[in-house]
Amino acid sequence: MYQSNLFTKTTKHTPKDEVSKNANLLLRAGFINKEMAGVYSLLPLGLKVHNKIEHIIRAEMNKLGGQEINLTALQAKEIWQKTNRWDNKDVDVWFKTNLQNKSELGLAFTHEEPLTNLLKNHINSYKDLPKYIYQFQTKFRNEARAKSGILRTREFVMKDLYSFHASQEDLDDFYEKVSKVYQTIFKKIGLGDKTYKTYASGGSFSKYSHEFQTETESGEDIIYVCQKCKVAVNDEIKKEMLVCPECNHQKFAKIKTVEVGNIFKLGVKFSDKIGLLYKDEKGELKPVVMGSYGIGLGRALGTVVEVNHDDNGIIWPADVAPFKAHIIAIGDNKDLKKAKSLYNKMIKKGIDVLLDDRINLSVGQRLSESDLYGIPHRFIISSKTKGKIEYKARSSKTAKLITESEAFKKVI
Amino acid sequence: MYQSNLFTKTTKHTPKDEVSKNANLLLRAGFINKEMAGVYSLLPLGLKVHNKIEHIIRAEMNKLGGQEINLTALQAKEIWQKTNRWDNKDVDVWFKTNLQNKSELGLAFTHEEPLTNLLKNHINSYKDLPKYIYQFQTKFRNEARAKSGILRTREFVMKDLYSFHASQEDLDDFYEKVSKVYQTIFKKIGLGDKTYKTYASGGSFSKYSHEFQTETESGEDIIYVCQKCKVAVNDEIKKEMLVCPECNHQKFAKIKTVEVGNIFKLGVKFSDKIGLLYKDEKGELKPVVMGSYGIGLGRALGTVVEVNHDDNGIIWPADVAPFKAHIIAIGDNKDLKKAKSLYNKMIKKGIDVLLDDRINLSVGQRLSESDLYGIPHRFIISSKTKGKIEYKARSSKTAKLITESEAFKKVI
Repeated sequence: MYQSNLFTKTTKHTPKDEVSKNANLLLRAGFINKEMAGVYSLLPLGLKVHNKIEHIIRAEMNKLGGQEINLTALQAKEIWQKTNRWDNKDVDVWFKTNLQNKSELGLAFTHEEPLTNLLKNHINSYKDLPKYIYQFQTKFRNEARAKSGILRTREFVMKDLYSFHASQEDLDDFYEKVSKVYQTIFKKIGLGDKTYKTYASGGSFSKYSHEFQTETESGEDIIYVCQKCKVAVNDEIKKEMLVCPECNHQKFAKIKTVEVGNIFKLGVKFSDKIGLLYKDEKGELKPVVMGSYGIGLGRALGTVVEVNHDDNGIIWPADVAPFKAHIIAIGDNKDLKKAKSLYNKMIKKGIDVLLDDRINLSVGQRLSESDLYGIPHRFIISSKTKGKIEYKARSSKTAKLITESEAFKKVI
Repeated sequence: MYQSNLFTKTTKHTPKDEVSKNANLLLRAGFINKEMAGVYSLLPLGLKVHNKIEHIIRAEMNKLGGQEINLTALQAKEIWQKTNRWDNKDVDVWFKTNLQNKSELGLAFTHEEPLTNLLKNHINSYKDLPKYIYQFQTKFRNEARAKSGILRTREFVMKDLYSFHASQEDLDDFYEKVSKVYQTIFKKIGLGDKTYKTYASGGSFSKYSHEFQTETESGEDIIYVCQKCKVAVNDEIKKEMLVCPECNHQKFAKIKTVEVGNIFKLGVKFSDKIGLLYKDEKGELKPVVMGSYGIGLGRALGTVVEVNHDDNGIIWPADVAPFKAHIIAIGDNKDLKKAKSLYNKMIKKGIDVLLDDRINLSVGQRLSESDLYGIPHRFIISSKTKGKIEYKARSSKTAKLITESEAFKKVI
C-alpha cells in the first residue's frame, strides 16, 4: 500500500482520559478510534493486525478439527433462564434491549447457552461425538469501569471454541490438546516468552480450570510462576497451593499479568439444564460433556502492544505486524522511483509492504511515524546511500547499509 | 471435508412459523439456525456461503481503492442527535440499551454518523480527498415484523462503503463506478440476470438514488423494468416517470423484487451537521461531499436461494456454493477408498470438495441431502459404474457416466 493513500493520520497528542499504554499508542498511530469509554473501532492498520491474529487462531482451530460458525448477538431470555444466567443479579455484564413489542432481549456476553440449545437438533448419539465448534464473534459486556484501553472493552471479538464429548476422559484428552494449541497460538502472535499456563479454580466438574496469563506491568492480575517449570497459579488459588501443581517445586515468583486466554471444563452443567442428551452404546440417554476455550482478540492485540513497545512506538512481532516491511523514499522523484521499484518487487514476492511515498513531508516526521507504526523492517531509499539501502529493524537501535538482495533476505 | 465430520444434520420437517422459501431450505439443510423471529445464526455451510459472498464483495471494494475498517455496534447518542437520527420517533428501528450508569446507548443500524465524526481527525485538506472506506459489520435493526426469512432480519452483516469527496463532480464519477461494480458483484454471486439497476427517490443533494432489485416471486418490492434497456424505476417514483430515465422508452414490465443493494448521494447532509470540513485550494473551509453504498450479505444470500432452487433443494451458483464438488461413495469400503482417492486429488488441485463417506446410511437419504445442499457438481463413486464416475450437475435433471479426467474438467 502507498502511504499517501492511507486515510488515517497519526497524532503526537496523548489522548485525553486514556491512561493505558496500549490504547495510547494505537490511538496515536491511528490503528483504532475511541467511540466512547471501553468502545474502540478498528481502522485499517488495526484491522490488519486483528485479522492476522484471527488468521493464526483460525488455522489452529481448524487443525484441531474445529468447525466454524457464527452465532447471533441478540439473545432470547428463555434459554438463559434455564441456566440461571439471565437476571442481572446473577450476571452483571448484560446489555439488555427490547423488541418493538417490549419483549426483553440480551446481547450475548458468551454463547454456551444458545450453542448447547441449537445442538439438540444435531446431536443424538455417541456416534455424533466428539464435536468441536468455534466462532469469531462480537461479545458485548457491560463493564462498570473500562480503564485498560483495549484490554477490557464493552464490545470485542472473541474466539470461542466449545467441545462436546461422550465422556469425561474424551474431554480431558481434548482439553490437554487445546492447552498445547493455546501455547502455540500465543507464541505465534509474539507473546510466547511471557505467557504462562496458570492454574485457576475449576467448577463443579473439575478441580481446576486454566488461564493463559501474560506478564506486563499494566496487568490487572497477579500470578505466581513456578521457578522450576514455569507453570503458574493465580492469586485466587495461591493460598491453597504451597507447591507447584505440576513439578512440586516450592519457589514462585509473583508477577503482574493480563489474562489472554482461558480454558474450562464445563462438564454437564449446560447440557443437563438445557437438555442436550445423547444415546450411549447401550441406548441410555446421557448429558453431553462439554468444554469451553476462549481468546479475546482485542485483548490479545492490546497485550502484544503492552509487551512490545518502546518510547517511540509499537514494535510488532513479525507475524501480526500490519505490514512486514516499510519502504521510505527520501529525497526526490528519482529516489521515489527506486523505492517503487523495490516495492513492486516485494509485492510480487507476496510480501506485505507499506511504501512511504510522501516525499514532500519532513523526514523527521516520517521517521517518527515509522517508529510509531512499528513495522518490523524499515528500508530507506535515498540518493545519499549510493545505491545501497539503509536498513533498520524496528527492534534494533542501529541502522546499516545493505544491498537489495540482503534486503529480500530480511523479509522472506 | 468429510461429511461424517460435519456436525449439522438435515431435516425433512418444514420449520414452524417459517413461511419464506429461503429460510425454509437453509434451515432444513442445516445452513442456518433460527434463534428467534428475524434472528438467524450461521452454521458451517451457511457461513461458508456467507464468506464467499464477502470475499467477492471485498475484492471489488479493494479494486475501487476502498480501505477496510470495522466500526462498533455500540453508539453514543450525541453524534446521532446532531443529525436528528437519535429519537425513536425519527428512526423506528433502533435497539437501545444502557450502561451501568444508566446512560443510553444505541446499536448501530447504519454508520454515517460515527464514520463522518471520526474522519474529522483524518481529513483536513482537499489533498486528503477522495477517500473510500468500507466495512463488513453487523447491523441491528428493530424490525416490527420479520417474516421473509433471512431477507429482512434484526441482526445481519452489511457491507457499507462510504465515499468522501472535495466536489459533487468527483462524487458523481465515483458513484457511476460503484454502480457498475455493483452489477459485477451481483453477477458474480449468481444474481446477474435477474437484478436491475432501479431509479429511486434521491435526497436534498441528488434527484435520484439507485437500488439494485432482484426479481423473485417472494419479493416485497414492485419495480417497473424498461423493456428496451432493462433499467428500472421503483414503485415510489413510477407515477412521475412516464418514460425510461435512460433511453426514453415507454414500455415497462411490472415485477416483484427484493432490494439487494442501494447507492445514495448523501452530499453534505452529514458532513455539514457533524462538521467534517476540508480546506480547498484557496484555503476556504468546505463540508466534505459524501456517498454511501450498501449490500446486506444475509439478504444477498437469501435472495440467491430464492432465485436458485427447485422442489428438492438449493441450486448454488458456482462461486458462492459451500463446496464446488460433492463426491458420494456408494457401496462398500472399496468404493469409499476410490472416492477418497478422487477427493484427495481434487483437494490437491485446490478444489473445495465435500466427501460423503457415510456408506452405512441409505442411498436415498444421502442423495436427497445432496440435492438439498445444492452443491453444483455431484460425482457418485460406485462399483456399479465400472470404473467410471456418475456425474450430475445440480442444475440438470440427468446424470451421465464420465471419466476421471472429464470430472476434473467440470470443476477446474
